Amino acid sequence: MLIHVVNPNTTRSMTDKIASAARAVAGGTAEILATQPDMGPVSIEGYYDEAYAIPGMLQRILEAEAAGARAHVIACFDDTGLDAARQAVASPVVGIGEAAYHVASLVAGRFSVVTTLPVSIPVIEHNLVRYGLAARCARVRAAGIPVLALEDPASAGRARISAEIEAALRDDHAEAIVLGCAGMADLAADLAARHGLPVIDGVAAAVALAGGLVRLGVRTSKQGGYAPPPPKPYAGSFAAFAFPPAR
Amino acid sequence: MLIHVVNPNTTRSMTDKIASAARAVAGGTAEILATQPDMGPVSIEGYYDEAYAIPGMLQRILEAEAAGARAHVIACFDDTGLDAARQAVASPVVGIGEAAYHVASLVAGRFSVVTTLPVSIPVIEHNLVRYGLAARCARVRAAGIPVLALEDPASAGRARISAEIEAALRDDHAEAIVLGCAGMADLAADLAARHGLPVIDGVAAAVALAGGLVRLGVRTSKQGGYAPPPPKPYAGSFAAFAFPPAR
Amino acid sequence: MLIHVVNPNTTRSMTDKIASAARAVAGGTAEILATQPDMGPVSIEGYYDEAYAIPGMLQRILEAEAAGARAHVIACFDDTGLDAARQAVASPVVGIGEAAYHVASLVAGRFSVVTTLPVSIPVIEHNLVRYGLAARCARVRAAGIPVLALEDPASAGRARISAEIEAALRDDHAEAIVLGCAGMADLAADLAARHGLPVIDGVAAAVALAGGLVRLGVRTSKQGGYAPPPPKPYAGSFAAFAFPPAR
Amino acid sequence: MLIHVVNPNTTRSMTDKIASAARAVAGGTAEILATQPDMGPVSIEGYYDEAYAIPGMLQRILEAEAAGARAHVIACFDDTGLDAARQAVASPVVGIGEAAYHVASLVAGRFSVVTTLPVSIPVIEHNLVRYGLAARCARVRAAGIPVLALEDPASAGRARISAEIEAALRDDHAEAIVLGCAGMADLAADLAARHGLPVIDGVAAAVALAGGLVRLGVRTSKQGGYAPPPPKPYAGSFAAFAFPPAR
Amino acid sequence: MLIHVVNPNTTRSMTDKIASAARAVAGGTAEILATQPDMGPVSIEGYYDEAYAIPGMLQRILEAEAAGARAHVIACFDDTGLDAARQAVASPVVGIGEAAYHVASLVAGRFSVVTTLPVSIPVIEHNLVRYGLAARCARVRAAGIPVLALEDPASAGRARISAEIEAALRDDHAEAIVLGCAGMADLAADLAARHGLPVIDGVAAAVALAGGLVRLGVRTSKQGGYAPPPPKPYAGSFAAFAFPPAR
Amino acid sequence: MLIHVVNPNTTRSMTDKIASAARAVAGGTAEILATQPDMGPVSIEGYYDEAYAIPGMLQRILEAEAAGARAHVIACFDDTGLDAARQAVASPVVGIGEAAYHVASLVAGRFSVVTTLPVSIPVIEHNLVRYGLAARCARVRAAGIPVLALEDPASAGRARISAEIEAALRDDHAEAIVLGCAGMADLAADLAARHGLPVIDGVAAAVALAGGLVRLGVRTSKQGGYAPPPPKPYAGSFAAFAFPPAR
Repeated sequence: MLIHVVNPNTTRSMTDKIASAARAVAGGTAEILATQPDMGPVSIEGYYDEAYAIPGMLQRILEAEAAGARAHVIACFDDTGLDAARQAVASPVVGIGEAAYHVASLVAGRFSVVTTLPVSIPVIEHNLVRYGLAARCARVRAAGIPVLALEDPASAGRARISAEIEAALRDDHAEAIVLGCAGMADLAADLAARHGLPVIDGVAAAVALAGGLVRLGVRTSKQGGYAPPPPKPYAGSFAAFAFPPAR
Repeated sequence: MLIHVVNPNTTRSMTDKIASAARAVAGGTAEILATQPDMGPVSIEGYYDEAYAIPGMLQRILEAEAAGARAHVIACFDDTGLDAARQAVASPVVGIGEAAYHVASLVAGRFSVVTTLPVSIPVIEHNLVRYGLAARCARVRAAGIPVLALEDPASAGRARISAEIEAALRDDHAEAIVLGCAGMADLAADLAARHGLPVIDGVAAAVALAGGLVRLGVRTSKQGGYAPPPPKPYAGSFAAFAFPPAR
Repeated sequence: MLIHVVNPNTTRSMTDKIASAARAVAGGTAEILATQPDMGPVSIEGYYDEAYAIPGMLQRILEAEAAGARAHVIACFDDTGLDAARQAVASPVVGIGEAAYHVASLVAGRFSVVTTLPVSIPVIEHNLVRYGLAARCARVRAAGIPVLALEDPASAGRARISAEIEAALRDDHAEAIVLGCAGMADLAADLAARHGLPVIDGVAAAVALAGGLVRLGVRTSKQGGYAPPPPKPYAGSFAAFAFPPAR
Repeated sequence: MLIHVVNPNTTRSMTDKIASAARAVAGGTAEILATQPDMGPVSIEGYYDEAYAIPGMLQRILEAEAAGARAHVIACFDDTGLDAARQAVASPVVGIGEAAYHVASLVAGRFSVVTTLPVSIPVIEHNLVRYGLAARCARVRAAGIPVLALEDPASAGRARISAEIEAALRDDHAEAIVLGCAGMADLAADLAARHGLPVIDGVAAAVALAGGLVRLGVRTSKQGGYAPPPPKPYAGSFAAFAFPPAR
Repeated sequence: MLIHVVNPNTTRSMTDKIASAARAVAGGTAEILATQPDMGPVSIEGYYDEAYAIPGMLQRILEAEAAGARAHVIACFDDTGLDAARQAVASPVVGIGEAAYHVASLVAGRFSVVTTLPVSIPVIEHNLVRYGLAARCARVRAAGIPVLALEDPASAGRARISAEIEAALRDDHAEAIVLGCAGMADLAADLAARHGLPVIDGVAAAVALAGGLVRLGVRTSKQGGYAPPPPKPYAGSFAAFAFPPAR
Repeated sequence: MLIHVVNPNTTRSMTDKIASAARAVAGGTAEILATQPDMGPVSIEGYYDEAYAIPGMLQRILEAEAAGARAHVIACFDDTGLDAARQAVASPVVGIGEAAYHVASLVAGRFSVVTTLPVSIPVIEHNLVRYGLAARCARVRAAGIPVLALEDPASAGRARISAEIEAALRDDHAEAIVLGCAGMADLAADLAARHGLPVIDGVAAAVALAGGLVRLGVRTSKQGGYAPPPPKPYAGSFAAFAFPPAR
């Protein structure tokens, strides 16, 4: 069983960390194909970055589907481009954000999310409302650390995340923690042990759920919003496209 | 990996069907221990039956936990006694109702449930509201067939379920169907093929999710509502208990 | 008019306190029959305790219905077994939790609940969501005192409850307080006077509502979820049931 | 115990019918004072009529409070002026709409409302949302009959209401019916018998709840939205007020 | 284009301030007719004051409609009598509360409201729930200043409002502020500049929206709840009405 | 005042129709700059098409902002790329979907949407939930006509839309209709006249609201989710990007 895990940003070290987390949970049950787009932002922090990451990510998903992937995982906590990807391919697609919320809902009455920067809070809250799981989320917290600082062992990132988990236990009555960034994948086990409650990493959660969907033989419905788009001409090309547009 | 699947009613033929569905999805990845309580109603249709099924079911779960089960599946679509079971043991516990809702939410924008009798509709709706997934459910439908009639190949059960799926596609804009009874586990594949949309059986869904939780190393939170109950004396015994009480 | 008030736990001193609160509000308008099961936990703190309390409680409700009770009150703030009891008998059944929420909603825009232990918070929140009255509840607070400590005049229970009411006024903008445990029945009047807002005891509220339903001639609907369960065989007996199962 | 029931419109025959329904449920437990304003519309069908009915109704409530009423019932299904009345007096005030929703919620999982004209549907839906009980209401239906036609025994009103109850059972899965007009108070018992489910009349429900609040010693909270308005000058007078303003 | 702005209270200095804010946003695009009732409370702080303000306000709206007004703005943040006004006239009617919520929703993910006194908080929260925009409002805050104190330059009103905006930024993650009183109309620009986020004054917002509706040719729907009330007799007159009734 | 209206698809005839609707409502109050991207799909029907339309659309918005546009209107009913655009520029950005919902909410208690194809229904429902206005929408209906068929006068599009409006009046109790496609802009006035209720075209609504925001001096909040994205490198380019990727 081949599971494709796509990191929608262009930072290879994050892809490697994500692949490692994915392979750890897959064990011998699935082969992991980890990719990233050739073009796009080096990290995704908000809606604007998402807009330029999605075309390159969809390219990887279409290629992997053609190469035999049985399921796809989108390894950005915003679930970047999840709906478009579901229209694009027949195999199931799982976002690491939604995966983490579903897993947390199976082991806790309510959970809090700890993400990187405040700019991501509204995106995450929007997704929770849409998925119907906002009622299960006590609070979305930001640790105040940029995504790429998580790649730097000298940063204070881990301590800040730990402090937010403390606050979630004390103030939110959270029963579980969801880590709100693919770059936190390597921290979950330690944090769970230190704080004494489930700490969910979305990458691992999504790979586990994607493998389950393949075993179940369940694929994305093609009734309704995920029906393939009607075939149509596309004008122009991206060749002359200044990337990204100057702001 | 040992996964315990408990049928909370006392009808062995249903246990066998459930075990078969569980083993089909587990394949080589997990061993299935299928049990049922010694005492209790032969089927569960509403809150009253649940009340007399739960003590016997908890007994099986405690025994299986002691025997090394790494996860438990409660194979009644009402998710009978799910909260009590989560307090009772450390391993994760998954209800087949909730499992089916989560899986359907991963492959469809919205789904309809097709259950057996109208008396079960409010129980299911209550669970959906509580889990936060009511927004994803277009409608809960009853096919008008008792649970045990599903065991009788001569009954019209399958045709009635198929008719409700037709109605869900036409009237509810459902993108997926959740089968609302453990006794329908053997019908999912055929119905999916006939109607052209995902048809989710809760037993298979729960076994897949339970296996995923074990691989993730995630267990039920003991912070909050699932903390073990404080130790306390229990008065009397069930020995003199007329069972069930005469109504 | 005979109103049956059942304490679902097996602590007789709580039954006596509950009976006293019930008779105070019934005055000359109703006769109170106060009972408790012979078997089960000495207090109910969470879902697990509930599972073992319900069969014995249903026995008392069926007996009282046969003895002419016109209404039943379940005197545990979790509304333990309320749905099963409504299926079991024709007379109306009122839980003290729901009664308190309804009464508070008639005299205040929003209320906070003050209960005993944190383990009860999720149960109460679940009920509020289900009843549709979560929007009226500002917050569920735990005073951090076990149920039976309320029986001990030397405990600091009353002071801790008072402190939580202060906090609810200051931080929740609560306009009324619901006391979240049957064992607090004797504190309501004093706390209302001290804090200057309505303080609702569920036992009194439920007896008042139950009496009202009888005067109205309104009984539980037998359409839908509270229809009597279809008659069916019950396997085994509770005679050999280790009680409670060893955890 | 004196309970004041105010009919906010100026049709005396409706006041008499309301008083009769109120006295039937009060029995020997309370004395009923039934009033109506001197001025205002002969019936209330929508927001505009409400605006001119409230000042006269508040006058009656202030007078009755001064005369010793222990509770007030507003006998219009729109719960006309309920919030203003709660600010005006110390005794509890119950609207017949809210009373009916609360009573129906105690004996049924969900209910449908059958009112008079479609213009009232949005008012009722607004109240249900606000009270938090919209989740318990399956649907608000209009029988298509003006309020005052209910006073005419020759009208087809009763048959039309019965037809809507049939439809609510069949299409809404309603488990109870709330009659959405004070003028239907005399129909509830017959309709309940004919259709085999609880049919709630708001007048009786409100009198029962008001009596219960008095017995409980619970009065409207003066914390928050029902605090008495700050004293202030009022300019002008209504003496020169063309009534109603020409449209 | 004539836009009618009615101040529902009887304080002329507030009418003047409102007219000034309205004319500033209308510029050359609309003529502003600013009115106030002859009778009623000098300020509106809660439901009780509203009850006596609405009849006089409706009189002004009916007069202005007859005089050619193409739209009406109700310049009280509680949206006093908005529904009744919509039934009364054909031209569109906009409340300054709803206008501010809609405008804030167009430029911010979520907003907080800063109003005058705590007694107004429940009224505002009620409106937000009803309009469906409660999900966009982080919190309703009261600065603890009476409406008319805003007319006094020596009061500490401005500083207290500024302190609440600080708190909304820090604690509510508010992205915009809605000023919750018509009497704050002159403060919006300064506060926006000082705090660095959009600060919405409802009077300006409502005039802008009302002008837009006129340009769009869109008027209040007469299907459903805003259909004109059926013609009917009105009994009595307000001539003998003690105003306001002695409390 | 320069208002930029961008048609996110590449069909010039739709841009012309949109520009015409925009200029009709702007009248002399604003100059309209109508644009479309050079590249992307010829129509947007679902999430997949959106993904390839957004980069080109953002380019136009950044150019127009630099050219002095005071506000931007995104003329696709899905509100394609609205959040990204709000991060990109300082001037306010209004989607025609959200604009239509807000305008309908000002003149009707509830509305129904009539869009083109069923594949768009989930996108629209998602937006309504997110904006908080789902409670105001009775139903989203699809007329079963592709977007570009609206450009063909010989198609049956208008008749099908009219039939859906009939159904919305009869079955949804809709009080207003929102036309769910920019390509329907020229039909609103006729349909309103024929069916006797407000029919809202999003293009006109958005231009009216955008003009209002400019007059109010209100711009997108830069606190929270619409803060400009942190500056960062973008890898690769779109030059070698096969467009669209072969499915």
